[in-house]
Amino acid sequence: MAMQQVKALVFDTFGTVVDWRSGIAREFAAFLPAHGRADLDPFAVADSWRRLYQPGMEECRSGRRPFTRLDVLHRESLEKVLKEIGITDASEGDLDHLNRAWHRLDPWPDVLLGLSRLRRKYFLAPLSNGNIALLANMAKRAMIPWDAILGAEPVQAYKPQRECYTRTAEVLAMEPHEVCLVAAHNDDLRAARMAGLSTAFVARPTEHGPGQTKNLTAEDPWDAVATDFVDLAKQLGLD
Amino acid sequence: MAMQQVKALVFDTFGTVVDWRSGIAREFAAFLPAHGRADLDPFAVADSWRRLYQPGMEECRSGRRPFTRLDVLHRESLEKVLKEIGITDASEGDLDHLNRAWHRLDPWPDVLLGLSRLRRKYFLAPLSNGNIALLANMAKRAMIPWDAILGAEPVQAYKPQRECYTRTAEVLAMEPHEVCLVAAHNDDLRAARMAGLSTAFVARPTEHGPGQTKNLTAEDPWDAVATDFVDLAKQLGLD
Repeated sequence: MAMQQVKALVFDTFGTVVDWRSGIAREFAAFLPAHGRADLDPFAVADSWRRLYQPGMEECRSGRRPFTRLDVLHRESLEKVLKEIGITDASEGDLDHLNRAWHRLDPWPDVLLGLSRLRRKYFLAPLSNGNIALLANMAKRAMIPWDAILGAEPVQAYKPQRECYTRTAEVLAMEPHEVCLVAAHNDDLRAARMAGLSTAFVARPTEHGPGQTKNLTAEDPWDAVATDFVDLAKQLGLD
Repeated sequence: MAMQQVKALVFDTFGTVVDWRSGIAREFAAFLPAHGRADLDPFAVADSWRRLYQPGMEECRSGRRPFTRLDVLHRESLEKVLKEIGITDASEGDLDHLNRAWHRLDPWPDVLLGLSRLRRKYFLAPLSNGNIALLANMAKRAMIPWDAILGAEPVQAYKPQRECYTRTAEVLAMEPHEVCLVAAHNDDLRAARMAGLSTAFVARPTEHGPGQTKNLTAEDPWDAVATDFVDLAKQLGLD
């Protein structure tokens, strides 16, 4: 397969490496009762926050706003969500702590074992819309063995902007096809392929909870298709 | 001491973390005889290459040239050095390999032990004029446990430009004084202190060889002064 020329594996992070929905809901499960809204489903509030993710980045992608790191966008959208549900008594410290819930997400169960094997042969980095501090704090807390923290912030462009993929290959001093995006999202892989990167799909069928309908399978003939990171490592000869 | 508020230790790399002079000379010791110049001292050629380091960056700092990553500046200065010594028969592959000698530098003997201890309490990253691929390849090869690869390239400014220090603190989402530069160079520390960072001096008295005359001691009252990284860890309560 085309994976033979690949030197670096770069990973979508939210959904592909970490289970953002459970992680954010876990923090709301403590926050909501403390602020008088024990009646709300923490998963539903997590979904509300996440729904403001693409619109926030779109302001930057469209050029209406200069590139702004995700921690800032997350904070703005958090304040909108809390306003909608009538929570107005959170302190600055509480808000900052809750906003950093994205720094405290846990990896899916196969991630650490898979990456520790993949690392023997490949350069590993996130290629995420998360900012450097977010991704690095997440990695330090969960012991994710990245070789560098890449993604939107170092290249000042948000996926699926073409530059986000091409400039990442430039930063790595590699040809685009020598860099493979690993993602659980077919649209991310389509944009990566358009930019010349190699592509690997790993299904995360519960990213959006038990009723997920999208991204259950590979929709295009990606260069690799794996059930999880350990399976990907095995397919690449690492076990 | 002022180190109590520090959350991240960021490291000058060439000279402070790695012994660039021995590493570059080691590669010239193989390259020069292969190209008919066994008569030259590989350390002297390494020094010649390094002398073009500051002038190359100064073109970018002055604004005469847009920010250009160090691998490119190194390649340009390498070609100048080889021209001066009459080597014109090196292939593109040879030149690229030699240029990446900076990716293959070894840490000083105390570095890995010291960083493994410091890592338990601090966020660790290079704050180097080296580019991301250079620093990350160096770290992967030598198993340097950085939490992120920071420095000139992510912030598009070369030390000692003030922005290189202040933007690095911004990327970390920390106040400048919460970030401590560790360096073997008093001028780097002066610029970091002017930008609000905390400062730690570690002497590297043989960086420039046995006859070194500069940076043998701390010239200002830095927040910490240590003999090596293990000593720094010990001073910070980690041993």
